[in-house]
Amino acid sequence: MNNNNIISKKARIGKNVIISNFCIIHDNVIIEDNVEIGICSEIGSSYNSKTTIIGSGTKIASHAIIYPNVKIGFNSILGHRVLIRENSIIGNNTQIGSYSDLEGDLIIDNFVKIHSNVHIGKGSYIKSYSWLFPYVILTNDPTPPSNIISGPTIYPFAVIATRSTILPGVKVGFGSFVGANSLVNRNVKIEEIVSGYPIKSRGSIKRIKKPKSREAAYPWAYNFKSSFYKENLEKIYETLKLEYI
Amino acid sequence: MNNNNIISKKARIGKNVIISNFCIIHDNVIIEDNVEIGICSEIGSSYNSKTTIIGSGTKIASHAIIYPNVKIGFNSILGHRVLIRENSIIGNNTQIGSYSDLEGDLIIDNFVKIHSNVHIGKGSYIKSYSWLFPYVILTNDPTPPSNIISGPTIYPFAVIATRSTILPGVKVGFGSFVGANSLVNRNVKIEEIVSGYPIKSRGSIKRIKKPKSREAAYPWAYNFKSSFYKENLEKIYETLKLEYI
Amino acid sequence: MNNNNIISKKARIGKNVIISNFCIIHDNVIIEDNVEIGICSEIGSSYNSKTTIIGSGTKIASHAIIYPNVKIGFNSILGHRVLIRENSIIGNNTQIGSYSDLEGDLIIDNFVKIHSNVHIGKGSYIKSYSWLFPYVILTNDPTPPSNIISGPTIYPFAVIATRSTILPGVKVGFGSFVGANSLVNRNVKIEEIVSGYPIKSRGSIKRIKKPKSREAAYPWAYNFKSSFYKENLEKIYETLKLEYI
Repeated sequence: MNNNNIISKKARIGKNVIISNFCIIHDNVIIEDNVEIGICSEIGSSYNSKTTIIGSGTKIASHAIIYPNVKIGFNSILGHRVLIRENSIIGNNTQIGSYSDLEGDLIIDNFVKIHSNVHIGKGSYIKSYSWLFPYVILTNDPTPPSNIISGPTIYPFAVIATRSTILPGVKVGFGSFVGANSLVNRNVKIEEIVSGYPIKSRGSIKRIKKPKSREAAYPWAYNFKSSFYKENLEKIYETLKLEYI
Repeated sequence: MNNNNIISKKARIGKNVIISNFCIIHDNVIIEDNVEIGICSEIGSSYNSKTTIIGSGTKIASHAIIYPNVKIGFNSILGHRVLIRENSIIGNNTQIGSYSDLEGDLIIDNFVKIHSNVHIGKGSYIKSYSWLFPYVILTNDPTPPSNIISGPTIYPFAVIATRSTILPGVKVGFGSFVGANSLVNRNVKIEEIVSGYPIKSRGSIKRIKKPKSREAAYPWAYNFKSSFYKENLEKIYETLKLEYI
Repeated sequence: MNNNNIISKKARIGKNVIISNFCIIHDNVIIEDNVEIGICSEIGSSYNSKTTIIGSGTKIASHAIIYPNVKIGFNSILGHRVLIRENSIIGNNTQIGSYSDLEGDLIIDNFVKIHSNVHIGKGSYIKSYSWLFPYVILTNDPTPPSNIISGPTIYPFAVIATRSTILPGVKVGFGSFVGANSLVNRNVKIEEIVSGYPIKSRGSIKRIKKPKSREAAYPWAYNFKSSFYKENLEKIYETLKLEYI
């Protein structure tokens, strides 16, 4: 703590919390133990008293804006300049990349990985273990501007590659793969590859091989190693898959 | 006001103005009554004495950068992390989304709605009641890099859906609809639908129906309800349309 | 200097350095003479003692985040909200546009011009005199998510127009031109025009004419005038070209 922050006396701050300089923490913000917050961040609001909770061990990089009525779970990582608007529920062990814009009224489950500069419209539901790569956009209005909000649903272990656009209400299936720059205008099936503008089916994810190899690159849970996952990903993949077949 | 701001004595600040912490307001900035400015914003410059005016009732969210010689009208709303460079004229009742980058030498008329992360190159002219959805880009250089600046013109009530790119000098016609992810390489006619890479004509806007309905979704002025518009939008639409037929 | 900054006593600050308010400069940061840094910026880290150097005459606009172990040469210009992660080497006389996200482990040579909101993945190598226009993305993972990092290489005088995506490991050749919104899924030859999704060859850059003219617009080094280049660009072009034929 230091003298360059403005922290409300009505905020509840846990142990071993590090808040860098030039931050504002408003009333009714709960920051659990071992949280870190970078410079020039603002959490909560002076206009709205709904509670925002930052779970223990979560690291928030600089220039964050987090609105009231947001819940972020434990051990999550937020990059620089993240914006999270009201009524957002974000799970444990998630990652939200720098410059990402979460428009509120959304749910992000545990172990979701969102890269830089991703835009998530209201009404989106992003299920566990899915990946959204840089500049992915989840839209929600079928006839803009209208008063309809119909966010996409991303199922577990789906991968949406860089710069793809998901149209309103679309479901991106369990373990599927959306190629870079795609316009996803229909539902994507379980373990389906799609790509293009608009998308075409390219078969099963098992067709994609590792570079210079005959081994399947997907399901990625069988190949990708990260200290981020403490558990057996292959087993989780096969167990969750049963729910979606 | 508070002690964590740096506000020039040569700035003129109206009544009921709220400037949050860690902001700099330079010389020759005029902030009219009832304006609000979020944290970590900078308005004006110490290098240039040209006047910037923020009109009454305008709300500017955090981390704004507004250069000298900018005029923003009344009752406008700017999202977080907006950048507005020199020689920009922005009307009344406009909305500029978070992360949007206005490169200067541009005009935005009244009631324009610009969503998040829109990039507006120099020389652009965006007319009243038009909508630019997230990640739309207005370019201006036909043979980059060159010394030519030829910005697009967006006519009233046009809708440019998410992630479309408007090429230099293009005119997007009155009431037209540009589908998501389009590359707009030619002028768009009044009330025309275009989409694709590059765009193809898809007929008249009246072909687009509301979801699960036979009712036309466009002109949107006949369907969209927002407290933002105090006047009869249908009448404004029909009146302005006469200028462009 | 002023009282609203937090500058480590272990940082080395040159002559005529201007650091605006609400900045943090950490240990082991070297800021050479005549550097300017905008508000709400953070350079270095309290967690990592590796040296970051900002070369003389370089101007860094507001809200910059520059990690440890970064070297930026002299007379470079960084826009607002630039993020530069660890292990980045950036040359002299470069320009990095606002909102650009440099993910680290990368090299950018002298006189490179990067516009707004460009995303440069780890492992990228961007050679001198090349141009990356707004929202260009350089990716690096052929089968995301994987443990492979294979960044693109951009050769001198290449031009990558707005919103193009460069896939992992791709080489964009000397003096080539990538049209707007392209998906670059293979190497681009010296002085080749490519565009499309995915790209197709459109012949030699000499086919592109200036607007309303029969004169070739490319190589741009023969046409574009900027005070930024002090030397004879045509001569540099022809000399460097010999290395790549």
